[in-house]
Amino acid sequence: MRVTIGQINTTNGDYAGNTKRILRAIEKGKKDQSDLVVLPEVAVQGYMSLDWFLDRDVAAHALEPLDEIIKATQGLTAIVGTIRPVEVERVQQGGRRLYNSAAIIRDGKLIGYADKTLLPEYDVFDDPRYFESARERHLFKHDGQALGVAVCEDFWNDKTYWRERLYTDDPADELISLGADVLVSINASPFNKGKMKQRCSMVTHRARAAKIPVVFVNLVGGNDGVIFDGASIVADRNGKIILQAPPFEEFFGTVDLDVDEADTRCLPGDDIETIHQALVLGIRDYARKNRFERAVLGLSGGIDSALVSALACEALGAENVLAVMMPSPYSSRGSIDDSIALGCRLGMKTIEHPISTAFETLTNELKLKRPTRGGEILAAENLQSRLRGAILMTISNAEARLLLSTGNKSELALGYCTLYGDTNGGLAVLGDLLKTEVYALARHFNRDREIIPRAIIGKRPSAELAPDQFDDQSLPPYDLIDPIIKMYFEQKSTPEEIVATGHDRALVYDLLNRIESPANEFKRRQLPPTLIISRNAIGIGRRRPVTHRYRRAPITAAMR
Amino acid sequence: MRVTIGQINTTNGDYAGNTKRILRAIEKGKKDQSDLVVLPEVAVQGYMSLDWFLDRDVAAHALEPLDEIIKATQGLTAIVGTIRPVEVERVQQGGRRLYNSAAIIRDGKLIGYADKTLLPEYDVFDDPRYFESARERHLFKHDGQALGVAVCEDFWNDKTYWRERLYTDDPADELISLGADVLVSINASPFNKGKMKQRCSMVTHRARAAKIPVVFVNLVGGNDGVIFDGASIVADRNGKIILQAPPFEEFFGTVDLDVDEADTRCLPGDDIETIHQALVLGIRDYARKNRFERAVLGLSGGIDSALVSALACEALGAENVLAVMMPSPYSSRGSIDDSIALGCRLGMKTIEHPISTAFETLTNELKLKRPTRGGEILAAENLQSRLRGAILMTISNAEARLLLSTGNKSELALGYCTLYGDTNGGLAVLGDLLKTEVYALARHFNRDREIIPRAIIGKRPSAELAPDQFDDQSLPPYDLIDPIIKMYFEQKSTPEEIVATGHDRALVYDLLNRIESPANEFKRRQLPPTLIISRNAIGIGRRRPVTHRYRRAPITAAMR
Repeated sequence: MRVTIGQINTTNGDYAGNTKRILRAIEKGKKDQSDLVVLPEVAVQGYMSLDWFLDRDVAAHALEPLDEIIKATQGLTAIVGTIRPVEVERVQQGGRRLYNSAAIIRDGKLIGYADKTLLPEYDVFDDPRYFESARERHLFKHDGQALGVAVCEDFWNDKTYWRERLYTDDPADELISLGADVLVSINASPFNKGKMKQRCSMVTHRARAAKIPVVFVNLVGGNDGVIFDGASIVADRNGKIILQAPPFEEFFGTVDLDVDEADTRCLPGDDIETIHQALVLGIRDYARKNRFERAVLGLSGGIDSALVSALACEALGAENVLAVMMPSPYSSRGSIDDSIALGCRLGMKTIEHPISTAFETLTNELKLKRPTRGGEILAAENLQSRLRGAILMTISNAEARLLLSTGNKSELALGYCTLYGDTNGGLAVLGDLLKTEVYALARHFNRDREIIPRAIIGKRPSAELAPDQFDDQSLPPYDLIDPIIKMYFEQKSTPEEIVATGHDRALVYDLLNRIESPANEFKRRQLPPTLIISRNAIGIGRRRPVTHRYRRAPITAAMR
Repeated sequence: MRVTIGQINTTNGDYAGNTKRILRAIEKGKKDQSDLVVLPEVAVQGYMSLDWFLDRDVAAHALEPLDEIIKATQGLTAIVGTIRPVEVERVQQGGRRLYNSAAIIRDGKLIGYADKTLLPEYDVFDDPRYFESARERHLFKHDGQALGVAVCEDFWNDKTYWRERLYTDDPADELISLGADVLVSINASPFNKGKMKQRCSMVTHRARAAKIPVVFVNLVGGNDGVIFDGASIVADRNGKIILQAPPFEEFFGTVDLDVDEADTRCLPGDDIETIHQALVLGIRDYARKNRFERAVLGLSGGIDSALVSALACEALGAENVLAVMMPSPYSSRGSIDDSIALGCRLGMKTIEHPISTAFETLTNELKLKRPTRGGEILAAENLQSRLRGAILMTISNAEARLLLSTGNKSELALGYCTLYGDTNGGLAVLGDLLKTEVYALARHFNRDREIIPRAIIGKRPSAELAPDQFDDQSLPPYDLIDPIIKMYFEQKSTPEEIVATGHDRALVYDLLNRIESPANEFKRRQLPPTLIISRNAIGIGRRRPVTHRYRRAPITAAMR
């Protein structure tokens, strides 16, 4: 059997554009004389459509775009992800309005649907809010071969692979038991660190165990903060990877399931390079899909805004990125010089808008105390950041530029940021990178030549909102706190589990309570979408009340 | 049987405070020699705890606060909402980690649990994210009587009451079929317009149909934007309401189930008065539970900020509310005078911080065009709003005052607001009120005496960001657009359904496309929590991608 995969980049609700991409995959299949063309989950409408899937008009017209696709399938079978309406009687009995389905189309005819059974409701997913679970699994005949088709999560609950499972059922295993000769898995599986390797291992494990080929097709592209990385895989009946699609780009490729030759062209790279590519795609797609050609950001002289500049220039072209330096009385001359040097190296325009005069005016009018060395004059510190935020939004408004916000996850977790100030923007580019990951990515940028000036990377982190102010006066060193934040967010470790890895108990509890304080959750609630690279990013996948009194406290031996 | 209800105001994660309130209800039950004391859903931990329910420490310690409660139940039965851990084997097979349960406690012993079966996942609810569904329903014996206990949604799917049902099962009906003599329903049912009357009708319908008494206890209190209104109900076997608890306050009350006397003390009031009370409670609880004693807001001279002032003064005391007038070159003298008059009537302190100097400085530095009569100089208009936002946040930071934001739902829906400007704040007080509802509530405030100056209510709405600028130059009149916004949000009507009620087709499509534009969703994503008074508020219950191309277009006869 010859299979073509269409690893396409869909946009929510862009029926015309998505259909065009699907047709392109079918054309590729025809040209290559394929038997089967496979597209990702909800390719027709776009997977992250959220509450658009509750819209009755969207549901009612769900199948209309299929007409054109069906007509194009002469001579082959296409498997296309789409929503489809649930039977009226079932809805009346309390069912959801839609199935999340794979349409199986052959020779100009709609053969049937494979509906999704397992509906994820963790992290950014809310499938049970929108979708009815499939009642049964069945195979589709194709030239005497039996096709098993699993929609995303239905493939992801292999009890021989996962130590912890999220569901009781394993629909893919059911399809194998029914006698599938080939297993097709259509996905919208978002990127996070290490996930590509995990998918390879999961797919090859399943193929080897069931002794059948697996065609695993994934969506590609940024959708707000969620980045689908593509990296589709075809494994043969021995678990050998015979097609490995490139990550982070559209790809149309064909393979014979019995080719018996490993595809090693696009093996998953190291984490830092995949993060790099993910962020570039995330910026590019957010801008492109929201019709921004140009971006603006504030350049402080620190590493975060330097890294965002480099990423933005790569994503959008340096000629489309404007960096604004906005020194205050507490900014160092070095910061300006370093920023200008960065702009030169990137070929990015830098301009200067000092905030000193406006800051003086408002500080006098509001009779604010000025920031002093070692003092904590929060209001006046934040005011500088908010003036900068207002200037950047003014430029964004006046020149139709997307404002990129530059805060990192360590800062956002600990509330070391100014709401309506440096958090302003359409997209938080580094919002899911720990400060130590920001350093690692900056060094990665410089691996061949010095793009980000060493002076910026080597600088002692500072918000420069008060004289001689440095991050390490308000926070423990990032080397110490980042591993704790990482365990807490990414592994969802309990405080005692973190302590057990060797961290100071008082520090762990203090940090976690600081992270979860209502004052910090209040800020995080109002952030722009964050580009997601981990299993627990700040944003729609992390739902916390602002108002709460949960506090973590060590249980001492005496209290037990 | 004598029953005491504890309509308590819980705080997420405030184990000590919540337990104290539960014990107070049990004390009341003992004093009144009750047989049964009933508390609301998840009373121990707080219902809107969101992802705290995913926390393994929270799950592991879920039952510890019950110890003190169990000890206090000598001589009576208490039914208390709490989370409880799911059996390990079930979790290992892919179950969630918690049940949402009612603990049935008697005479110092834990008798058992009634677990929630139906797990809502619409609007603000994400129950399947956290909770395992109950496997079976059973009764509890109490002095020879059989108690049926239903947790919230389990009571809400009566097929003889609802035209459209959300689930197939009706657990409350199952309990009745098993032979329940009394039905106890513990709830965390949020307020929205008309809901109190609906609950009364639903409870009395069930009692009458089953010919058994129903004890329906609801939570009270604000939790971020979600406001639980209490208004608990006890109906006798004839469906007569024999106890109707007051809404929007804590209440501990006792009734004999065979009293045969209707309680008419607290019948649900008219919509506008319940909205008034809901907003006052919402402000008060958000401030109190987040430990703010004082608030600040910007006073423009318009009706929105005037109404928020009146509500804030009622909720927090006029002495704790600071109103800041921040005129620009485009503000009218009338606006200042009206604001001062409002401050006098409310007894609220008003101060003036003109933004003209800072605005001039920045406009010059940024070489911005100044707003002109009839011109659309967005950047300079927004800059004024952002300077005001920065000043208000500076005062909020300097004086530890909660900043209340004043935008209404009509504006937020249509994007007629400035992000990081007038949207700034910890709580959007009017974010779920249409402009016409703002007027209605302002008039309601003035029903006995003129609290909000008539000059403010009668004024032509204006943002005053450009010379002679009025809302009706950018938007159709609110009388025309509010009914459309209302149908679209609250009834989730399709465009054609709205047109069918007599609205202009072009206007309907234009408005809905404007509402759903990515540029406006981008703003709404970054709003503070909104006090919710309707069935579809902007906020956590309305989940839309920023990035999308969904567009509503009339299907013309030719296209069909």
